[in-house]
Amino acid sequence: MSAQQLYEQIRRKKSFLCVGLDSDMQKLPAHLRRERYPMLAFNRAIVDATAPYSVAFKPNLAFYEACGADGWVQLEETVRYIRLRYPHMLIIADAKRGDIGNTSRLYAEAFFKKMEVDAVTLSPYMGRDTVQPFLEYAGKWAVLLALTSNPSASDFELTAGADGKMLYERVLETSMRWGTPDNTMYVVGATQARMLSDIRRIAPEHFLLVPGVGEQGGSLEEVAKNGMNSRCGLLVNSSRAIIFADGGENFAAAAGQKAREMQEQMSACLPAE
Amino acid sequence: MSAQQLYEQIRRKKSFLCVGLDSDMQKLPAHLRRERYPMLAFNRAIVDATAPYSVAFKPNLAFYEACGADGWVQLEETVRYIRLRYPHMLIIADAKRGDIGNTSRLYAEAFFKKMEVDAVTLSPYMGRDTVQPFLEYAGKWAVLLALTSNPSASDFELTAGADGKMLYERVLETSMRWGTPDNTMYVVGATQARMLSDIRRIAPEHFLLVPGVGEQGGSLEEVAKNGMNSRCGLLVNSSRAIIFADGGENFAAAAGQKAREMQEQMSACLPAE
Repeated sequence: MSAQQLYEQIRRKKSFLCVGLDSDMQKLPAHLRRERYPMLAFNRAIVDATAPYSVAFKPNLAFYEACGADGWVQLEETVRYIRLRYPHMLIIADAKRGDIGNTSRLYAEAFFKKMEVDAVTLSPYMGRDTVQPFLEYAGKWAVLLALTSNPSASDFELTAGADGKMLYERVLETSMRWGTPDNTMYVVGATQARMLSDIRRIAPEHFLLVPGVGEQGGSLEEVAKNGMNSRCGLLVNSSRAIIFADGGENFAAAAGQKAREMQEQMSACLPAE
Repeated sequence: MSAQQLYEQIRRKKSFLCVGLDSDMQKLPAHLRRERYPMLAFNRAIVDATAPYSVAFKPNLAFYEACGADGWVQLEETVRYIRLRYPHMLIIADAKRGDIGNTSRLYAEAFFKKMEVDAVTLSPYMGRDTVQPFLEYAGKWAVLLALTSNPSASDFELTAGADGKMLYERVLETSMRWGTPDNTMYVVGATQARMLSDIRRIAPEHFLLVPGVGEQGGSLEEVAKNGMNSRCGLLVNSSRAIIFADGGENFAAAAGQKAREMQEQMSACLPAE
């Protein structure tokens, strides 16, 4: 999916919502746990209920790997389901992978050819070799960790270099030379909203994927004010607040309702046509 | 597996060899590709042939994920096979994971409880939150990327901070406070052998996992000279040079022979009893 196509979806749906499919087996509604593939059944219902209000889905792989090969099957089938029924939806594998050489090429193949997602989150620690193979697929995206919302972001991301720049700023500036705003996005935590405007200055055109609105304390208005560019340039992720809005049989309708509320808030934040 | 147990294995086998199970489906001997689970058949034979000369096995997950759920099954079964037949072998999942909060806890659970490996490689970019859940399992190991052997290690790992320390030095010094030499190891690329002595000064007691001896140009003697501590403190990984020593029906015997040669070289490097 190209940036142009993604912008079209955002305009059409008046939404920049990414629904995080963090479908923790332990938290699924009780009636689904009897299914052969509980996470898949859950995801299908969540996807159908929230697709009208969102432009992207983001499964975090930890929740699937925790179930071993069985979890991997449910991830693959979830992606296939979205791909077939909602072909204009961006699918982001939140895998935070990062390896080098032929290993990195294989990861890119696993996600882009075998699983057919549109985007993969990557850790930049080992530098360009980690990212390059992901940039070689037309219409696909590398989503690099830049500044995350966790407390220990201060351990390394927020440490200053000899030139006064913080590590996350160096990651942004350096990696912007590897790809383009058409194949590179950045993860920026919502709790760092005051830093979003700095990041937007460094990367005026790139999409920023912002997790943690809602659950982790960031406010949508603040994120939009500091992070939006003239065409939007934001994907705001919400996981638990949507998918676990109701823990019982009504889970899908509740998720749809919650996604709709977020879409309405987002609609008010978007630049006028 | 405790550090003490690992040291005992090193002493007993006179080897600090880690065999990398980078069992690339495309490179397997032709006669194995007809099997239902070719990577598993390959791994079993490689494990049996090389176990007498090695103390650890390290599957890199990219090679398994490239085959989807089918690959994951073969990874799980490989681990189970080693666990049952060679209970004193350290198994390192080379996953280079790195996530935060409940996601990181789930990854730790996936690898340590579901799959029962002993160690997982982790990317330190997001700081302590990424690593902490892995340190909470007794007898298990977090193996942090410190200084890798790829060309673009210079993008970030080798950039200097305001205090003059390079990022990989900061990663070492900071993360050494999170755990102990009994639950934390570091990945240090063999092409950086001249830096191994610096790293050994910073972390005198920790195990260093050194990939890239052989394939990527580092020499075993230099690695041992610069990286060994009084009890050894090294695991040197070799993948392709061993597992693909012969591409035909003789692959297992050739791998065993190659592992034996490396063990003999290692024996000569080890400190006297």
